[in-house]
Amino acid sequence: MSVLFRQLTICGVGLIGGSLALDVRRRGLVERIVGFGRTQANLDIALRRGIIDIGTLDPVEAARDADLVMLATPVMNFPATLKAMVTYLPPNAVVTDVGSVKAWVVDQLEPLLGPAMSFVGVHPVAGRELAGAAAAEERLFENRWVIVTPSKRSEPEALNKVETIWRATGARVERMAPAVHDAILARASHLPQIVASALATALADESVGGYWAAGFGAGGLRDTTRIAASSPEMWRDICLTNRDALVQALALYRDWFARFERAVTAGDSHALSDLFERGRQMRRRIA
Amino acid sequence: MSVLFRQLTICGVGLIGGSLALDVRRRGLVERIVGFGRTQANLDIALRRGIIDIGTLDPVEAARDADLVMLATPVMNFPATLKAMVTYLPPNAVVTDVGSVKAWVVDQLEPLLGPAMSFVGVHPVAGRELAGAAAAEERLFENRWVIVTPSKRSEPEALNKVETIWRATGARVERMAPAVHDAILARASHLPQIVASALATALADESVGGYWAAGFGAGGLRDTTRIAASSPEMWRDICLTNRDALVQALALYRDWFARFERAVTAGDSHALSDLFERGRQMRRRIA
Repeated sequence: MSVLFRQLTICGVGLIGGSLALDVRRRGLVERIVGFGRTQANLDIALRRGIIDIGTLDPVEAARDADLVMLATPVMNFPATLKAMVTYLPPNAVVTDVGSVKAWVVDQLEPLLGPAMSFVGVHPVAGRELAGAAAAEERLFENRWVIVTPSKRSEPEALNKVETIWRATGARVERMAPAVHDAILARASHLPQIVASALATALADESVGGYWAAGFGAGGLRDTTRIAASSPEMWRDICLTNRDALVQALALYRDWFARFERAVTAGDSHALSDLFERGRQMRRRIA
Repeated sequence: MSVLFRQLTICGVGLIGGSLALDVRRRGLVERIVGFGRTQANLDIALRRGIIDIGTLDPVEAARDADLVMLATPVMNFPATLKAMVTYLPPNAVVTDVGSVKAWVVDQLEPLLGPAMSFVGVHPVAGRELAGAAAAEERLFENRWVIVTPSKRSEPEALNKVETIWRATGARVERMAPAVHDAILARASHLPQIVASALATALADESVGGYWAAGFGAGGLRDTTRIAASSPEMWRDICLTNRDALVQALALYRDWFARFERAVTAGDSHALSDLFERGRQMRRRIA
């Protein structure tokens, strides 16, 4: 495959940005990869692992010659990061991101672009409870969903080149409108995070008869709370930037949880069987 | 280790009963293992795998010569199963179980015992979303909690012999009162099940823009709903038989979920950070 961009600058060389860099390099899709970050320690890891060619804490140096800029920090840092770089970018630079919310990102970033620049919103659905360049790995995106959300400032050529990069990782690339993406992910990803975190918080201080109750949990408790270990900063940002869709998803869950609660309280055998069976059928569809 | 019982009859040769049988046989703790079940097909699997020596659908045959009876069916079948067998058991038989609730089981079973019989309630905290003799495996209980709940009819010798069996599996055996067990497990096990099943049911029919939302979930959704695939019959019984403790645990969860919901709705950055951080700290304790 031929070179698509001369310089990819990744802002935030963590699990997602770092893993993409490894795939891009393996495929020879860009000539040079620059990592821009807040801490030298993480950039040093990325340099040692061969994830980036150059690491910098300076937004001006990060912007210069970057015909592709990928925002891969926590979502709410995107606007400040782009503002610090945009006047130093090549005039026709392509800006893209890997954020877990899309409408907010489009609304915030498009007004910041220079007149010849493009924005292509992307969400690789491959998050994990791991962070930093140390967590980056090749082939992280193979067979994962990567959702591309074309918007007003997505020029067709930029859109195609960004999609070509993601298809090269082995991901399943799907286009949809930013608002549709946000409503889907509020249900399929942001809701499970809050469900898991709420369970972890509820049990944090629960003791019975001198025993810490959660200490007697088995695999079920561990699986159901696994993602509660994820970055609080990242999830705070997602909640703040996808609020309306998430409020709907939370209400949906609250309603179904209340059905279980009523069935338990009433000792309603049939309702309990039906509810657990409905859950089992759904779970089998995503097995 | 010497032989503790002449004949162990396991009622319900599934994941737990079958796995215990494999360990008991490996350690030579009983002379003969009889499997009692509802379907010949499952008993045949157990026979082929060497889990049991004899399989029967007849409670009278199952009872005869059984100085140890282990109830390992769904919990609500325990009383009917014991009633069908009790008059044919040796007069000093020991009855034990592997149910996930304990106070209800003790209340239901102790009045059924013959005057010289003992009951020893046990809960091996090692459930999985798998069922049947095919799922049984050696060493399932190694380093798992096995909670023994002595009650009025637990004669010391019976209690010690049953605990000896469980310690021989490599489990961590802990004694506690039935009600304490039930309150702890309502939080550490039954609550996570309902949290997971409610998430699965909530997303079962959720479509956005023609897409089934759950189809775009990643590892987070899969982990958080994994146990929703468990047996509806088993969980219905647990809900019906541990209702009071579970109602408390559900209210506790509802309260913490509501805190997340309020923080999301209000866009409260600090509250969200604190909540996710509390969840992360708790999750790290059970890692």
